[in-house]
Parts: sequence; structure tokens; C-alpha cells
Amino acid sequence: MILNFNRSDFLIKKILKVKDIKKILKKNFINFKDLDNFEINDISSLYILRENSIIFIEYYDDYLKIENSKIIIITNNEKIFNSSEKNTFLVSDISDAYNCIVNNLFAHDDHQIYNDNFELINGSYISKQSNIHSSVSIGKNCIIGRGVQIKSDSIIKNNVVIKNSIIGSNVIICDNSTIGSTGFGFDFNKRGANYLNPQIGIVFIDNNCHIGSNCTIDRAKIDITYIGKNCMLDNLIHIAHNVEISDNACIAAQTGISGSVKIGKNVTIGGQSGFAGHINIGDNVVIAAKSGVTKNLIDNSVVAGFPAIDIKNWKRNIIRERKNGYK
Amino acid sequence: MILNFNRSDFLIKKILKVKDIKKILKKNFINFKDLDNFEINDISSLYILRENSIIFIEYYDDYLKIENSKIIIITNNEKIFNSSEKNTFLVSDISDAYNCIVNNLFAHDDHQIYNDNFELINGSYISKQSNIHSSVSIGKNCIIGRGVQIKSDSIIKNNVVIKNSIIGSNVIICDNSTIGSTGFGFDFNKRGANYLNPQIGIVFIDNNCHIGSNCTIDRAKIDITYIGKNCMLDNLIHIAHNVEISDNACIAAQTGISGSVKIGKNVTIGGQSGFAGHINIGDNVVIAAKSGVTKNLIDNSVVAGFPAIDIKNWKRNIIRERKNGYK
Amino acid sequence: MILNFNRSDFLIKKILKVKDIKKILKKNFINFKDLDNFEINDISSLYILRENSIIFIEYYDDYLKIENSKIIIITNNEKIFNSSEKNTFLVSDISDAYNCIVNNLFAHDDHQIYNDNFELINGSYISKQSNIHSSVSIGKNCIIGRGVQIKSDSIIKNNVVIKNSIIGSNVIICDNSTIGSTGFGFDFNKRGANYLNPQIGIVFIDNNCHIGSNCTIDRAKIDITYIGKNCMLDNLIHIAHNVEISDNACIAAQTGISGSVKIGKNVTIGGQSGFAGHINIGDNVVIAAKSGVTKNLIDNSVVAGFPAIDIKNWKRNIIRERKNGYK
Repeated sequence: MILNFNRSDFLIKKILKVKDIKKILKKNFINFKDLDNFEINDISSLYILRENSIIFIEYYDDYLKIENSKIIIITNNEKIFNSSEKNTFLVSDISDAYNCIVNNLFAHDDHQIYNDNFELINGSYISKQSNIHSSVSIGKNCIIGRGVQIKSDSIIKNNVVIKNSIIGSNVIICDNSTIGSTGFGFDFNKRGANYLNPQIGIVFIDNNCHIGSNCTIDRAKIDITYIGKNCMLDNLIHIAHNVEISDNACIAAQTGISGSVKIGKNVTIGGQSGFAGHINIGDNVVIAAKSGVTKNLIDNSVVAGFPAIDIKNWKRNIIRERKNGYK
Repeated sequence: MILNFNRSDFLIKKILKVKDIKKILKKNFINFKDLDNFEINDISSLYILRENSIIFIEYYDDYLKIENSKIIIITNNEKIFNSSEKNTFLVSDISDAYNCIVNNLFAHDDHQIYNDNFELINGSYISKQSNIHSSVSIGKNCIIGRGVQIKSDSIIKNNVVIKNSIIGSNVIICDNSTIGSTGFGFDFNKRGANYLNPQIGIVFIDNNCHIGSNCTIDRAKIDITYIGKNCMLDNLIHIAHNVEISDNACIAAQTGISGSVKIGKNVTIGGQSGFAGHINIGDNVVIAAKSGVTKNLIDNSVVAGFPAIDIKNWKRNIIRERKNGYK
Repeated sequence: MILNFNRSDFLIKKILKVKDIKKILKKNFINFKDLDNFEINDISSLYILRENSIIFIEYYDDYLKIENSKIIIITNNEKIFNSSEKNTFLVSDISDAYNCIVNNLFAHDDHQIYNDNFELINGSYISKQSNIHSSVSIGKNCIIGRGVQIKSDSIIKNNVVIKNSIIGSNVIICDNSTIGSTGFGFDFNKRGANYLNPQIGIVFIDNNCHIGSNCTIDRAKIDITYIGKNCMLDNLIHIAHNVEISDNACIAAQTGISGSVKIGKNVTIGGQSGFAGHINIGDNVVIAAKSGVTKNLIDNSVVAGFPAIDIKNWKRNIIRERKNGYK
């Protein structure tokens, strides 16, 4: 997936220069080698490098190649710091550095509810900074936030909140769902709303998806939470930040997909299933209801149980247990 | 349960005649023997036969008796087609035929958001085509759609969406719940909002029910999703399309009941339980929390676990496992 | 936790005297010994005794010490009745007595939607009887009910319902959540909205909490459902009535916590976990995803599975099962 978006569509950017970074990171700051007046425009991840941006790197990766020389790296890893030829800050607490810089660079809706320039149109609040195709139907009591794009022939039902999102063509989003709200991102050792890692990414729901009622799909931390073409989501489903679901997924009710999980094409997932974070699920995988998937799954896997295993073995184990025990 | 409803209360009907069906099914059409100008009024299921309607039959059933000669049968099953004396169409893809005909016969809210003739009354959007008893209390930011009936002394709290539903007397529906939205119905081999099987049934919540917050109860595909008298539903519960729950059920939070499950009287269901689709649960059944019920349960069963078994045996198996293993 | 609140901020109180109680309990009434015109002001629990109140006691407790002589005790337990020197009623059905008295003493929102004196301010309905600090940000389509307090710098996003609640400083509540609605309280033998045990307590969310989207946190029956400082709740979480969660909890998505569970400090809970009611969880406990916690857990426990056991043993059992069986 090589999707991109213009972050300034969604967030109100403040002006920040390298000399401001120096002030913000006062405690943490150790070294830097760049022009004080160089203007910081954005935050990058390793997946989407943006010009004049900052990237936060915690762990060393041999394959790390950051080619844009104007990217400033902030790290708590001395190895990266020493070996780098880039403009680099070494900090002691990278989570804190991220929070400070992002909160200074952007206004976001866990910091303050900024003025979205809403207009009340036909019973819903639509931001003047949104971009909604004239063929889109929107029900009552919806919120369509700053920067949101909704393409042709999509239907947004009632009481739906859509922020920080791009919605494709012919998408249906049912009542009381929340798209593009804050992901569950924070430092486990510093809990509380004060210490939230600001989430500044978006949700991209591709063409022809159907999203059920009372679902939550969280915006990515920096990049994109992605729902592929033709995906079918039932009700009360949770999709965490940075999840990527490929085309044609069918996901039954009350399933929860943890942060950064990647799911292949044509996957079918039974109700009330859950996924550990950061795992990869292959194409054509079938996951039975109530599964707890804890590991990567190769293409065409069919699994059940918790921890999820091949469904044939899961069934055999149940038969064996009942033979030995009580049924 | 012999409940019925007038579909045209809820949906805007278009005019469709047999000759139109011929055009719609052009590709699929094989044979028919009826007057071209015969007017199609509705869709039937095997449970509720309606006059001048179409019924879609996929599987053969020896007991099949369709007595109203004005019902047109559409099937992809040659056996039914050949043996029938009724007005019958044989199609190659029954899911596609259903979608085409229903989308031509009715406007529904996964196709376009039609004008419900809403009035903003005391902070909620109430359709002029709804029928709400004067003793009903409705909170703020609710949507009460076309055709909805709400009987005496019921309380609808805030931000509740009710569409395609009949609500009895003395019912309470708590905040942020969605009643009567689209069920999860589609052909597994054709995914995407474009291929949704239109859901044109309703939800019937009988007298004296209490529905918690942030629940979803989906309308039936053709007939009625039914919640019996005196049922108590906790929060974040999902009731899929065509579920039928008899009187006096008590269902704890985050339980999900899959499509077409039938539940007897006086049933108690613990939180986070799930049910396979199309199963039957007897009267007075007790289901422990976190159960996954995969099979029919006879009256007075008490079960736990996944797959759910008799709770005594479930407990014995746990004791045995711990004796043999680690506890 | 020694928190208290003034119930009359939240509920509209009617005037009730002992002689009225006599009439209300006509059927149940057996004995009493107090002034007919003594005015009843409130309902007490054993945890918060209130002046001129009624307390309902079902089970005998040796440590029971009710020192305020003006509290009237209603019980169905003859032992308490006989041994008591307090003003005591003996009733045959304590659930029914509770319902009758509370429904006569207070107007509550499962009985009728009373006039909350809402003002539509910037797209949300805010009760004139609420108390919201000027620094609080509130999104669109929210409901802030009678008596609700929200302290400085908190952010309430969109389509949020807050009733019967005190919200601390610097709290964030995300979209489509329901705070302070009715708990799941009723007599299992008398089901239906008519027989609901009225819930007249509140929710207290302490400073610096983050509550995700589409969560439900139910008001206590009589006292306080409490969420401690710095707690982080993900999306689609259910917190039942009378739950008390101490500071710094981190709770992942789709977890459900049953009524009256008490949770210690610094607890971490994986997604889709569930808890039996009325259990106590110690400090620093870690609960893996999809756990079903059925018993008290001591400080520093790390558990997994259902029923949840020490995570090391849970893993060993899985390895053993796979060694013996199929993996």
C-alpha cells in the first residue's frame, strides 16, 4: 500500500523551526547540526517519508535508509545517533519528545477541540474544510470533520462521527459508528490523558466498503489505518490504529483488531475474534468465531480457538478432550 | 410467532410488473408463465406469505407448500422449477436476482437515503410517517424513521436511532443504540457494498423490554427480528438479522447473537457470549458468560465454554486439566 | 474510596414521609416504629450512610453497624428485623420494596424523561442544572444532563451522552460514548422494564482519564461507579454499575467489567477480557487479552485464559495440550 495524504488538510499546523525544537526538548536535547531557522512541516514514519519532517526512531534497523536529507531524526538510540549522517537529536525519552513536538506542531482533538468551521446542513455538522462529493447521502446528527473527503455515491447514515478520514466511493457507514477518532497510543509507564501520544494519522476506507453500526475505526498514529476495497464489517467492530486490511475482507460482529495488524486479501473473520497487535495475516485466511489470533498466519490458513490453531486440529483436540473427559 | 407488518409503512415502493422482472433478470431469465402486467407488491419468505409477492427459494424442501397462486417463485434449483405448478423463474444466481429485484422494487437506506419527511421535534428527528403514542418520551438527537411505531409509555433515551421497527408499550431503549439498521447479509463470493442483499424486514421489540446503551439490533432480511416481552438486554449487545428471542430473556453485556438464531422463553445469557447462526435454544436455558454456543440446546440446558457443553462437565474438565497440568 | 455526592443535584426528589412508606408498602408492610411525619430524604448503602435515609438490607452481616439512628432499615430478613434497635420495616419482597420506594422518592430516567432544562449550546444539549468549567471543550450532538459536573480542561468529543456523572479535570471522553446510563439491575425472577431496580447512583471519572469511543459506563445503583486518575480506556468497553477502578488502569478494547468489581492500582487488562461480578483485583495485576476472570486476584498477579490462571501455567497447559494432541 502506497497511500499518502496531506496532513495539513486535517490538522491545524503551527509554525515550528529547529530552534523551537531545541527549546521544546531542552531537557532531553543532546546534539543537533542544522540551521536554526529550518522549518519543520510534518512528522514522518519509516513507511511514508515526508519533506522537511521529523522521524522518531526507537530501534535500530540495518535496512534503515532515510534518503531525504532534510528529515530530522529524533532517537533515544545512541547507535543510530552516532552512525547517522543525518540531522539527528538524541533524547533520553522518545515518547516524551514525540508528545512535546507533535503537540507543539499541530492542534489535534485530544489537545483541544479546535474550530472545525462546521456548518449545520440538513441536520448534520459538516466542516467547511471537508470535501464531500455532491452524490453523497448523509443522515442526521453526523459530524464530518476538517479535511474529511467522501467520494461519490457513498452513504453515511445517522449519528456517525467521521474525522481525519478519507472515504472512497460507494461506501456505506451505518449509524452510531465512529471513524477516525484517537487510537490507543501511549507510553505504558506514563498513563493518563496528559501523556497520550498524539495520533495525527488518518483512516482510509476504500471504495465499496460496508461498515456496520456502532463500530470504531481509529486513525493511525502517523500514517493510515486502511480498510481495502469491498470490505464488509458487521456491527460493534473495533479496528485499532495502523491496522491495514486488504480488499474483500468479511468481518463478523464484535471482532477487535489490535494496532498495526496487517490482513491480506479475501479474509473471512468470525464474530468476537481478537488479534494480537503487529501480526500479519495472509490472503484467503479463514478465522472461526471467537478466535484469538496470536501469531502470523500464512495464506489460506483456516484457524480456530485461542491461541488460534489449524481448525482441524482444534476440532480434534476438542474431540480428544471430550473422549478423555466429560462432554 | 405469527407477527406481520405492512412493508409499505417502512419502505418506499416502486411499481414493478412481471414484464419488468423479465427485463431486470435479462441475463438470468429462463422461463416464466404469467401475465406481463401482473403487479408485484412485495417479497415473501416461507414464514410470511404475502399476496402478489415474490419468493426466493434456494434449497428444496419436501414440506414446501406455497398455497397462494399469485406468488412468483424465483429459484436457482431446477428441481423446484420443474416440479412446480406455480409461476416460476429459474435463475442462475439467486443472490443476484434477489438484489436486482428488491433494489428495483423498493428504495431502502443502503441504496440511497430517501426523504423520511423528518421533523425536528424537541431535539430529535421524527419522521412524519412514524406513529408514536403521545405518552412516549424521546430524548435528544434521536432519529425515528419512516414507518416506526412506538406504543404507549415507552422511553427512548438520547442519540438513539430507530428505523424499520415496531416498539411495544413500556419499552426502554438506552442511549446511543441502533435499532433496525442493516443486517450482515450478502453473498460470500461477492463482497462489497454494491452486492449487499437488501434488508427489507423490520425489528419488533415487544412490550416491557429494556435495551441497554450502544446496542445494535438489525432488521430482518425479509420478515421480523423479534425481541419478546420483558426481555432485558445489557449494553453493547449485538442482535443480528432474523433472530427471534422469546419472552423474559436476560442477556448480559457484549453478547452477540448471530443471524436467525431462535431463543426460547426465560433464557439467561452471560456476558460476552456468542452464538453460531441458525441454531435453536430451548426454554429456560442458562448460558454462562463467554460461552460460544455452536449447537441447538434443549429446554433447561445449563452450558458453558466454547464449544458450549453442560456446565457440570465444563467444570469437571477444568478440574481435570488442572489436576493433570498446571493451575 | 470515600467519595460522596449530593443526589439531589442529579435527581428530582419528591416528598416522602414514613406514613407514605406505609402506604407504598401496604402489602409487604409488617411493622414499623417511627414518627409518621418523619421526612425521608435519600437512599443509603452500607458504604455511604446518608441522613434521614432508607437502607435496604437483604443479608445479615455480623459487622453491620449503622450508627445514624435516623436511617430506616428495610429488610426481608427476620433476624435483622428482630435484633435491630433501629427503625425497621420487614418486607417479604425487598426488591419490590426498593422499586416502590425509590420510584416514589425520585424521578429517574428509566421512569420518565424529566425536563433537564436543556439549552442547545454550540450544537450540544447542556442542562442548566449542570456545572461545566469554562475551559471544557464540548463537541457536537452531546447531551450533558442534570447535575453533571465537568472540571477544568476536559474534552468531551461528539455525540457523547453524559448523565448522572462527575467528570474530573483533564479528562477526555471520545465520540459516541455513554456515561452514566442505567445499570443492569433487576430481580432475576421479575424481568421486564416494569421491574427494573431504579439506579440512582452516579459515575465519577477522576482526573486525567482517557475514555475511548463507543464505551458505556453505567451509573451505580445507589453510590458511585468510579474510574480512578489517569485511567486509559480503549474503545467499546463496558463498565457496569458499582465498578471501582483505581488509578492508572490501562484497559484494552471490548473488555467488559461486571457489576461491583473492584480493581486495584496500575492494572493492565488486555482486549475482550471479562470479569465475573463482585470480585476484587489487586494492584499491579496484568490480565492477558480474552481472559475470563472469575475469582479475586492478589497484587501482582499475571493471568490469562478462562477461567483465568497464572499466565505461566496457562502457557504450560497449552504446550502440554499440543504435545499430547494436535497443534
